[in-house]
Amino acid sequence: MVVIYRTPPDVAAFDTHYFDVHLPLAHQLPGLRRYEVSKRPIATPAGDAEPYLVAILYFDNLDALRQAFATPEGRACAADRRVLAPRDEDVQMYLFESAEV
Amino acid sequence: MVVIYRTPPDVAAFDTHYFDVHLPLAHQLPGLRRYEVSKRPIATPAGDAEPYLVAILYFDNLDALRQAFATPEGRACAADRRVLAPRDEDVQMYLFESAEV
Repeated sequence: MVVIYRTPPDVAAFDTHYFDVHLPLAHQLPGLRRYEVSKRPIATPAGDAEPYLVAILYFDNLDALRQAFATPEGRACAADRRVLAPRDEDVQMYLFESAEV
Repeated sequence: MVVIYRTPPDVAAFDTHYFDVHLPLAHQLPGLRRYEVSKRPIATPAGDAEPYLVAILYFDNLDALRQAFATPEGRACAADRRVLAPRDEDVQMYLFESAEV
Protein backbone atom coordinates (compact mmCIF):
# COMPACT_ATOMS: atom_id res chain seq x y z
CA MET A 1 0.00 0.00 0.00
CA VAL A 2 1.30 3.41 -0.99
CA VAL A 3 -0.13 6.38 0.91
CA ILE A 4 0.65 9.93 -0.21
CA TYR A 5 -0.26 12.85 2.01
CA ARG A 6 -0.41 16.35 0.66
CA THR A 7 1.25 19.12 2.63
CA PRO A 8 -1.01 19.79 5.59
CA PRO A 9 -1.85 23.27 6.89
CA ASP A 10 0.12 22.64 10.09
CA VAL A 11 3.13 20.50 9.35
CA ALA A 12 4.37 20.39 12.93
CA ALA A 13 1.01 19.13 14.19
CA PHE A 14 0.90 16.61 11.34
CA ASP A 15 4.36 15.29 12.17
CA THR A 16 3.57 14.95 15.85
CA HIS A 17 0.34 13.13 15.16
CA TYR A 18 1.84 10.95 12.44
CA PHE A 19 4.83 9.73 14.40
CA ASP A 20 3.37 9.71 17.91
CA VAL A 21 -0.12 8.40 17.16
CA HIS A 22 -0.48 7.01 13.66
CA LEU A 23 2.77 5.11 13.45
CA PRO A 24 2.16 3.11 16.65
CA LEU A 25 -1.37 2.33 15.44
CA ALA A 26 -0.09 1.18 12.05
CA HIS A 27 2.46 -1.07 13.70
CA GLN A 28 -0.41 -2.98 15.25
CA LEU A 29 -1.83 -3.93 11.84
CA PRO A 30 -1.87 -7.71 11.66
CA GLY A 31 0.34 -9.00 8.87
CA LEU A 32 2.34 -5.81 8.38
CA ARG A 33 5.76 -6.91 7.12
CA ARG A 34 7.53 -3.62 6.58
CA TYR A 35 6.70 0.04 6.93
CA GLU A 36 8.68 2.76 5.21
CA VAL A 37 8.20 6.49 5.44
CA SER A 38 9.70 9.07 3.11
CA LYS A 39 12.25 11.55 4.23
CA ARG A 40 12.13 15.06 2.86
CA PRO A 41 12.50 16.47 0.29
CA ILE A 42 10.15 14.62 -2.05
CA ALA A 43 10.89 15.66 -5.61
CA THR A 44 8.08 15.71 -8.16
CA PRO A 45 9.33 16.22 -11.71
CA ALA A 46 5.81 15.83 -13.08
CA GLY A 47 2.26 15.67 -11.89
CA ASP A 48 1.01 16.20 -8.41
CA ALA A 49 2.65 18.94 -6.40
CA GLU A 50 2.96 19.36 -2.67
CA PRO A 51 3.35 15.82 -1.47
CA TYR A 52 4.41 15.91 2.17
CA LEU A 53 4.81 12.31 3.21
CA VAL A 54 4.77 9.00 1.39
CA ALA A 55 4.30 5.78 3.35
CA ILE A 56 4.75 2.31 1.91
CA LEU A 57 3.27 -0.57 3.88
CA TYR A 58 4.15 -4.10 2.84
CA PHE A 59 1.95 -7.13 3.39
CA ASP A 60 2.20 -10.62 1.96
CA ASN A 61 -0.56 -9.95 -0.55
CA LEU A 62 -3.70 -7.91 -1.16
CA ASP A 63 -5.88 -10.29 0.85
CA ALA A 64 -3.63 -9.91 3.87
CA LEU A 65 -3.85 -6.15 3.50
CA ARG A 66 -7.64 -6.19 3.25
CA GLN A 67 -7.90 -8.50 6.23
CA ALA A 68 -5.66 -6.21 8.25
CA PHE A 69 -7.93 -3.24 7.63
CA ALA A 70 -10.99 -5.28 8.59
CA THR A 71 -9.67 -5.77 12.12
CA PRO A 72 -10.22 -3.34 15.01
CA GLU A 73 -6.58 -2.28 14.62
CA GLY A 74 -7.17 -1.61 10.94
CA ARG A 75 -10.31 0.38 11.60
CA ALA A 76 -8.44 2.42 14.19
CA CYS A 77 -5.76 3.16 11.60
CA ALA A 78 -8.30 4.20 9.00
CA ALA A 79 -10.08 6.44 11.50
CA ASP A 80 -6.81 8.02 12.52
CA ARG A 81 -5.87 8.56 8.90
CA ARG A 82 -8.94 10.77 8.64
CA VAL A 83 -7.55 12.88 11.47
CA LEU A 84 -4.33 13.31 9.49
CA ALA A 85 -6.14 13.92 6.19
CA PRO A 86 -9.73 15.00 6.85
CA ARG A 87 -10.59 15.47 3.18
CA ASP A 88 -10.24 12.70 0.61
CA GLU A 89 -8.23 15.06 -1.59
CA ASP A 90 -5.60 15.38 1.14
CA VAL A 91 -4.45 11.80 0.69
CA GLN A 92 -4.04 9.22 -2.02
CA MET A 93 -4.00 5.54 -1.22
CA TYR A 94 -3.07 2.78 -3.62
CA LEU A 95 -3.55 -0.83 -2.62
CA PHE A 96 -2.03 -3.35 -4.99
CA GLU A 97 0.17 -6.35 -5.37
CA SER A 98 3.43 -5.87 -7.16
CA ALA A 99 6.00 -8.07 -8.76
CA GLU A 100 9.65 -7.53 -9.45
CA VAL A 101 10.15 -7.05 -13.17
CA MET B 1 10.90 6.51 -6.91
CA VAL B 2 7.17 5.90 -7.10
CA VAL B 3 5.55 6.45 -10.51
CA ILE B 4 1.77 6.35 -10.87
CA TYR B 5 0.22 6.29 -14.32
CA ARG B 6 -3.41 7.13 -14.83
CA THR B 7 -5.51 4.87 -16.99
CA PRO B 8 -4.49 5.60 -20.57
CA PRO B 9 -6.91 5.89 -23.48
CA ASP B 10 -5.56 2.70 -25.06
CA VAL B 11 -4.59 0.26 -22.34
CA ALA B 12 -3.40 -2.44 -24.73
CA ALA B 13 -1.05 -0.03 -26.48
CA PHE B 14 0.16 1.25 -23.10
CA ASP B 15 0.89 -2.26 -21.87
CA THR B 16 2.78 -3.19 -25.00
CA HIS B 17 4.86 -0.05 -24.88
CA TYR B 18 5.44 -0.27 -21.14
CA PHE B 19 6.61 -3.84 -21.05
CA ASP B 20 8.30 -4.08 -24.44
CA VAL B 21 9.96 -0.67 -24.60
CA HIS B 22 9.95 1.16 -21.28
CA LEU B 23 10.86 -1.73 -19.03
CA PRO B 24 14.01 -2.66 -20.97
CA LEU B 25 15.03 1.02 -20.99
CA ALA B 26 14.48 1.32 -17.24
CA HIS B 27 16.56 -1.77 -16.63
CA GLN B 28 19.50 0.08 -18.14
CA LEU B 29 19.36 2.82 -15.50
CA PRO B 30 22.70 2.82 -13.70
CA GLY B 31 22.32 1.99 -10.02
CA LEU B 32 18.80 0.53 -10.26
CA ARG B 33 18.55 -2.01 -7.43
CA ARG B 34 15.02 -3.25 -7.77
CA TYR B 35 12.03 -2.53 -10.00
CA GLU B 36 8.50 -3.47 -9.05
CA VAL B 37 5.34 -3.02 -11.06
CA SER B 38 1.81 -3.26 -9.73
CA LYS B 39 -0.57 -5.96 -10.73
CA ARG B 40 -4.20 -5.13 -11.22
CA PRO B 41 -6.54 -4.28 -9.62
CA ILE B 42 -5.25 -1.21 -7.81
CA ALA B 43 -7.71 -0.27 -5.09
CA THR B 44 -8.08 3.39 -4.14
CA PRO B 45 -10.17 3.85 -1.01
CA ALA B 46 -9.58 7.60 -1.07
CA GLY B 47 -8.18 10.28 -3.32
CA ASP B 48 -7.03 9.86 -6.85
CA ALA B 49 -9.12 7.66 -9.10
CA GLU B 50 -8.14 5.65 -12.15
CA PRO B 51 -4.59 4.67 -11.43
CA TYR B 52 -3.51 2.13 -13.99
CA LEU B 53 0.03 1.20 -13.10
CA VAL B 54 2.31 1.92 -10.19
CA ALA B 55 6.05 1.38 -10.54
CA ILE B 56 8.51 1.49 -7.67
CA LEU B 57 12.17 1.85 -8.56
CA TYR B 58 14.75 1.42 -5.84
CA PHE B 59 18.16 3.04 -5.78
CA ASP B 60 20.70 3.35 -2.99
CA ASN B 61 19.73 6.94 -2.30
CA LEU B 62 18.37 10.08 -3.91
CA ASP B 63 21.75 11.08 -5.32
CA ALA B 64 22.08 7.75 -7.09
CA LEU B 65 18.61 8.23 -8.54
CA ARG B 66 19.38 11.73 -9.77
CA GLN B 67 22.67 10.58 -11.25
CA ALA B 68 20.89 7.75 -13.06
CA PHE B 69 18.49 10.17 -14.72
CA ALA B 70 21.36 12.43 -15.76
CA THR B 71 22.86 9.67 -17.92
CA PRO B 72 21.91 8.95 -21.54
CA GLU B 73 19.99 5.91 -20.31
CA GLY B 74 18.10 8.06 -17.83
CA ARG B 75 17.29 10.67 -20.44
CA ALA B 76 16.03 7.91 -22.74
CA CYS B 77 13.77 6.68 -19.93
CA ALA B 78 12.41 10.12 -19.25
CA ALA B 79 11.75 10.70 -22.95
CA ASP B 80 10.01 7.37 -23.23
CA ARG B 81 7.93 8.16 -20.15
CA ARG B 82 6.52 11.08 -22.08
CA VAL B 83 5.40 8.67 -24.79
CA LEU B 84 3.54 6.66 -22.14
CA ALA B 85 2.13 9.74 -20.46
CA PRO B 86 2.22 12.70 -22.82
CA ARG B 87 0.57 15.11 -20.38
CA ASP B 88 2.00 15.85 -16.96
CA GLU B 89 -1.38 15.09 -15.41
CA ASP B 90 -1.21 11.54 -16.77
CA VAL B 91 1.56 10.59 -14.38
CA GLN B 92 2.75 11.34 -10.90
CA MET B 93 6.35 10.82 -9.90
CA TYR B 94 7.71 10.97 -6.38
CA LEU B 95 11.44 10.82 -5.78
CA PHE B 96 12.43 10.43 -2.18
CA GLU B 97 14.51 8.53 0.30
CA SER B 98 12.65 6.42 2.78
CA ALA B 99 13.45 4.75 6.04
CA GLU B 100 11.90 1.78 7.76
CA VAL B 101 9.95 2.99 10.78
